[in-house]
Amino acid sequence: MFDANDTQMMHTALALARQGRFSTSPNPRVGCVVAHGAQIVGQGFHVRAGEPHAEVHALRQAGNMARGATAYVTLEPCSHYGRTPPCAEALIRAGVSRVVAAMSDPNPQVAGKGLAMLREAGIQVDCGLLETEARALNRGFLSRIERGRPFVRLKCAASLDGKTALSDGRSQWITGPEARADVQMLRAESCAVITGVGTVLADNPQLNVRAFPTLRQPARVILDSRLQTPLSSRVVQDGGSPTLIATLNNCHQSLQKYTNHQHLQILRPSESNRRINLHNLLALLAEKGYGEVMVEAGAVLAGAFIEAGLVDEIVLYQAPKILGGNGKGLFSLEENPKSLTEPPLWQTVSVTPLGNDIKWVLQK
Amino acid sequence: MFDANDTQMMHTALALARQGRFSTSPNPRVGCVVAHGAQIVGQGFHVRAGEPHAEVHALRQAGNMARGATAYVTLEPCSHYGRTPPCAEALIRAGVSRVVAAMSDPNPQVAGKGLAMLREAGIQVDCGLLETEARALNRGFLSRIERGRPFVRLKCAASLDGKTALSDGRSQWITGPEARADVQMLRAESCAVITGVGTVLADNPQLNVRAFPTLRQPARVILDSRLQTPLSSRVVQDGGSPTLIATLNNCHQSLQKYTNHQHLQILRPSESNRRINLHNLLALLAEKGYGEVMVEAGAVLAGAFIEAGLVDEIVLYQAPKILGGNGKGLFSLEENPKSLTEPPLWQTVSVTPLGNDIKWVLQK
Repeated sequence: MFDANDTQMMHTALALARQGRFSTSPNPRVGCVVAHGAQIVGQGFHVRAGEPHAEVHALRQAGNMARGATAYVTLEPCSHYGRTPPCAEALIRAGVSRVVAAMSDPNPQVAGKGLAMLREAGIQVDCGLLETEARALNRGFLSRIERGRPFVRLKCAASLDGKTALSDGRSQWITGPEARADVQMLRAESCAVITGVGTVLADNPQLNVRAFPTLRQPARVILDSRLQTPLSSRVVQDGGSPTLIATLNNCHQSLQKYTNHQHLQILRPSESNRRINLHNLLALLAEKGYGEVMVEAGAVLAGAFIEAGLVDEIVLYQAPKILGGNGKGLFSLEENPKSLTEPPLWQTVSVTPLGNDIKWVLQK
Repeated sequence: MFDANDTQMMHTALALARQGRFSTSPNPRVGCVVAHGAQIVGQGFHVRAGEPHAEVHALRQAGNMARGATAYVTLEPCSHYGRTPPCAEALIRAGVSRVVAAMSDPNPQVAGKGLAMLREAGIQVDCGLLETEARALNRGFLSRIERGRPFVRLKCAASLDGKTALSDGRSQWITGPEARADVQMLRAESCAVITGVGTVLADNPQLNVRAFPTLRQPARVILDSRLQTPLSSRVVQDGGSPTLIATLNNCHQSLQKYTNHQHLQILRPSESNRRINLHNLLALLAEKGYGEVMVEAGAVLAGAFIEAGLVDEIVLYQAPKILGGNGKGLFSLEENPKSLTEPPLWQTVSVTPLGNDIKWVLQK
C-alpha cells in the first residue's frame, strides 16, 4: 500500500506538522505535502485555530500542479464546515488523484467522513502510514477526544539526591540555564500549566513563556480549594495569558474579588475528601479544549497527580548538586509503596545531558 | 613530534592497557605496541603483578622484528629491578630505535629514569602522546602515588525521587539486572569496596564480583568503629577475598575474635570526633597499594565521604520507581548547604539509559 517515497513524504509532512506544536491548540498539529512522486509541488502546516488548515496552504502553493498529484496529510482531512470550509472538498476540487493519511481523525465531527468523501469522489485513499508517529505528535488532542482528559506531563526539577529545595524552601535555581530554557519549550507546547496555590504563595511565578516570542501563551491553572490566591500575585495581575482558579470555595463575596480581571476564570471542579477531584478537574480542562497540560507543582500536588494515576509523562531535570537529608523531597504520597519487587510502572524514554544537568523523560 | 600513525598506535596501546583494568592492581595498567610504521609486529598488556610487563609480551612477539621498530608504551618503561627486570633494558637489548610514551611514571622508583636510560642508549624518546587518556586509565595508581590516597568512587542506587530504600529499610532491589551487572564491573575494577558496619548488619552483603570470573577480587573494607561486625557475616566467613575491618576499638579480647580468620585484617585508623578519620583511613589503604576504591554505603557514611571532600567520582544508578516522602534518602550531611547559587561542584561526565534505569556519572 505504501512505498519508500510515500514514507519519505509522510516524514516531511510530520516535520511540517511539528512546526505547529506551540500554536495550533485546541486544533491538532497537521502537516500536508502535495507531490508527484518525489517532486513536492505544495506543502504547508496548520498554524493556529481560525487560520487555514495544512491542506489549504499546500494546495494554494501547488495551484494547477495539484491535478493528478498525491496529497500526504498527517491527519484525516476534515469533512465539516468549521471556521474554515472542509479540506476534503478542497482536495477534491484541486483534482488530486490520491490521498495518503497517517491516521483517521477521532474527532466525532470527522471520524472517517473526510476519507469517505474523498473515496466517493473517486480518489484513491490510503490511511495508516506512520500512524504511531502521527499519534505521538497529537497525543494531547487525541487524549482530549479519546479519554476526555488532557495528556498530563509532570515536570520536576531536583538535585542529585532528589531534593527540590533547601530546608527553608528556597528552590531558585536548582537547575542551570539550559534546563530552564528547555522548560520554556515544554510550557510553550502546553495548553495549560497547572500548579497549586502553595507554589503561587511561595514563589509568585508567572508560569508563562518568556524565552522566545510565541503566538499563544499557555493558560495558568491554579488549584486553590480555599481561594487563597493573592490578588497581587503575578498570575492575577499579569494579563498576558488566561488564569483559571480551580476552587471548592463557593462564597460569592470571595469569588467576586477575582471576577474584575478579564483574563481570570473560576473553575468549579467536584470535591473528594475535601480536596479538588483531579479527575473531574482534568475533564473540565478537556471540555475547554486543553489537550496537553503540564503540572509544575510542589510535592503534595505532584504526589496527588501520581497517586491518582493521572500522570502520562514525567520530565525530571536533575542538577549535580547535593542538598542533603533535610532538603524538600520530590513527591509526598498518601500511601507509600509497600514493596520494591513490583515491576516499574514507568519506562525510561530518554535521558540526556542538558548543560551540566540531566533531563530524564519517563512514560507509563 | 607525533604524527597520525603515532596517535593510532598509542590508541591501540591504550586499548590493550585497558584489558588489565580488573587485574593489574597494585601495578598500573600498561599496554605496549611495537611497530614499523603502521605494521604492528608485537603487542601486549600487563595482566597482573608478578607477571611480565606489557613491553616484555610485545617484544617477545616481535622477536627480531623489534630491531629498528618504534615501541609505543602507555607509561614510561620501568628502570628498576622489581619482581621483573627493567623494561628499559629489554627495549634497548631488543634494538628498538624509538620509544613513544604516553606519560612518565610518577612512581619515585622510576620517575624519568626509564626514559633517561633509553636516551643514554641512543634511542629516540618522545613522551606525552595522549597523556590525558593515559592518566585517566591509571587514575587510581596515580592518585595513590601523587596524592597518597586512592581515587574514590561513590556508588549509589536510588529511585526516581532519590530514595535508596523503603521506610522499613528494604532496598533489594531498587535497580534492575543491567544496573546490578554494571556494579559488578565497577567492583571488579576496584582494589577495595568500602562500606559501613550498618550495611553489613542490615544486608549481610558479599561485596564481591560474582557476575563473571575475575583474576582478583576486591578487598572489603568495613568501617566498624566499635567492632560490631558479626563473626557469622559473609565478609567474615567468605574467604574469597580479604576483609579489612577498620576500627577504633582497641580491646585486645574483642579484636582476637577476628584474628582466627586468615583473610581478615584489622586496620587502626586515627580518630576524629569519635569517628574514623576518613583521610587517615584512605592513607592507610594507599599504603597497602590500593589505588581505586569504591564506597558502597548508607546515607551517613556516603554523606561523610562527600563532606570530607574525599569523593572523586559519583556513579548514581536511578530506577524509574517512586518511593515517596518516607523512603530513605541518599545522603545524610552534618551540615546542609546554605545556598543554591554556588556553582555546582560536580560535573556531569555522562548519563545513559541502562535497561530501564539510568546511570549518571559525575566528577569534580
